Amino acid sequence: MLTAIQNLGGWITLTAIAVFAITGVLAGLRKGADIFSLLVFGMVTALGGGTIRDMILNVPVFWVDELVFVWVAAGASLLAFFVYRMFSQVYQVLLYLDAIGVALFTIQAIDKVLNLGHPPLIAVIMGVITGIGGGLIRDILTDRPTLLMRRDLYATPILLGSIVYIALLHFVPDFVFSWLAAMIFIFGLRASAIYWDLTMPGWLTTKSEK
Amino acid sequence: MLTAIQNLGGWITLTAIAVFAITGVLAGLRKGADIFSLLVFGMVTALGGGTIRDMILNVPVFWVDELVFVWVAAGASLLAFFVYRMFSQVYQVLLYLDAIGVALFTIQAIDKVLNLGHPPLIAVIMGVITGIGGGLIRDILTDRPTLLMRRDLYATPILLGSIVYIALLHFVPDFVFSWLAAMIFIFGLRASAIYWDLTMPGWLTTKSEK
Amino acid sequence: MLTAIQNLGGWITLTAIAVFAITGVLAGLRKGADIFSLLVFGMVTALGGGTIRDMILNVPVFWVDELVFVWVAAGASLLAFFVYRMFSQVYQVLLYLDAIGVALFTIQAIDKVLNLGHPPLIAVIMGVITGIGGGLIRDILTDRPTLLMRRDLYATPILLGSIVYIALLHFVPDFVFSWLAAMIFIFGLRASAIYWDLTMPGWLTTKSEK
Repeated sequence: MLTAIQNLGGWITLTAIAVFAITGVLAGLRKGADIFSLLVFGMVTALGGGTIRDMILNVPVFWVDELVFVWVAAGASLLAFFVYRMFSQVYQVLLYLDAIGVALFTIQAIDKVLNLGHPPLIAVIMGVITGIGGGLIRDILTDRPTLLMRRDLYATPILLGSIVYIALLHFVPDFVFSWLAAMIFIFGLRASAIYWDLTMPGWLTTKSEK
Repeated sequence: MLTAIQNLGGWITLTAIAVFAITGVLAGLRKGADIFSLLVFGMVTALGGGTIRDMILNVPVFWVDELVFVWVAAGASLLAFFVYRMFSQVYQVLLYLDAIGVALFTIQAIDKVLNLGHPPLIAVIMGVITGIGGGLIRDILTDRPTLLMRRDLYATPILLGSIVYIALLHFVPDFVFSWLAAMIFIFGLRASAIYWDLTMPGWLTTKSEK
Repeated sequence: MLTAIQNLGGWITLTAIAVFAITGVLAGLRKGADIFSLLVFGMVTALGGGTIRDMILNVPVFWVDELVFVWVAAGASLLAFFVYRMFSQVYQVLLYLDAIGVALFTIQAIDKVLNLGHPPLIAVIMGVITGIGGGLIRDILTDRPTLLMRRDLYATPILLGSIVYIALLHFVPDFVFSWLAAMIFIFGLRASAIYWDLTMPGWLTTKSEK
């Protein structure tokens, strides 16, 4: 079952990378950009968060020796460009796929960091960096307000889910259960935010000063 | 006396991290953001400069094995959110605290880089990166013109102070004196800039083209 | 001949660094900035791309042990500030010098990465990062739309030239020929884009949504 999940994890990771790449291309498309720039946006969105994580941890950057990640990110970006009318029709679907990708990226990052022997706090931070880093770089390069400045609940499910996952690993001696529960928690919270347009409660938010 | 200063230095560093975190939160507050984004802004402002420095130097990133820095940055950020009305009233005080923090970060970075055996030029560059790196990332993530585009004298005291400190270390065989003199130099110049609203002389500045 | 090219390469690299630094200063000049900020823009533009490349590859950052790169970047930046009226008159010339610099940076990065034993795909990616990374950071710090959002053909010659160079190295057993041919290819394509104001064909571009 563990191996099955890890195998499944491999496929979901590749799916997540593809989906992230597509969201990067879509961000650029809306602003108007040429195919090369869109390729960069797609690849940076898909690979950027994990790159920052690995540079901070001083371990080899994950895609430098695993070219499949690069090919999938590049292929999905080019595909997205050529069929983008289709993708913008299914943008809502993409948001949900992105939520699965975020959940998986975050949890795999936490596993990686814990296995390197770092404490839970570092694992949570790296989970968040991996989950949102690529999207932040995408927003900066495409000259948009970063996702941290937007209203919808995007990063919070990642942070809470990271804490939930580590707590589960600690208190429940069942890796598979913890893994599935945290996945469902992150995806469920993010999907709810998309579906019902949830935002932070007012007392946890500030208004822009005019 | 040296140990006393180093102990004192430890406390001032933690104070500096807290103050930097608070300035990050305030930057986000003014634009309107939720608590999680503000937490990221606070932590990035407090820890970002040193992170870039350590990644470029290819040494372990300072907070990965020293969790106290992370906790202080996170705690100060959350505190700043919940009592921000107080903080915005004392914003002027914060500017001066920030000036102390910048002076300390810069000088400690120079000590670190010189102790790693790098030449003075690299030490100056890393002093500047440590002093302004966190603020630059904060400005980028909160979608503001970066501090390098603003008028007030912020980065120049850091650069000049770095050079003064290294010259003192070279010519005055007294670490404590050099350390105190450089601290006073950087803080004094920055505090003067805040108090009298100093900017660069005109011949060292260009005007924006319309 | 190989040594001659490598010696020549050393000089051209320094020229390229100087030219990149000058373009960074010019970008800041137009927005209005003080001399210190301009120094940062110049140095970041000249050294930023290679810095990101080396951090991702987990090798020592190239300028940390080769101070000549730092001095040239700093000197060219200061020079550019003091004689900027001259430079803005020769801005067109600078664009062509920049094209030489980009070609050289890209090809030297590919050589470096291949010599480290990485596969061609990684070499191409690092060639592109080295060629455009500095310019991207410059655009972000000076609060302009990044070069990836602009219309003119800047990054595409770099990508195509990287692929051409690696293909030549593979199929033509003559390093000098491959090197010169790739240089001419990248420079020629970029120079044509400057001279005739070339952009991507429409079917490889998207328009901004209003």
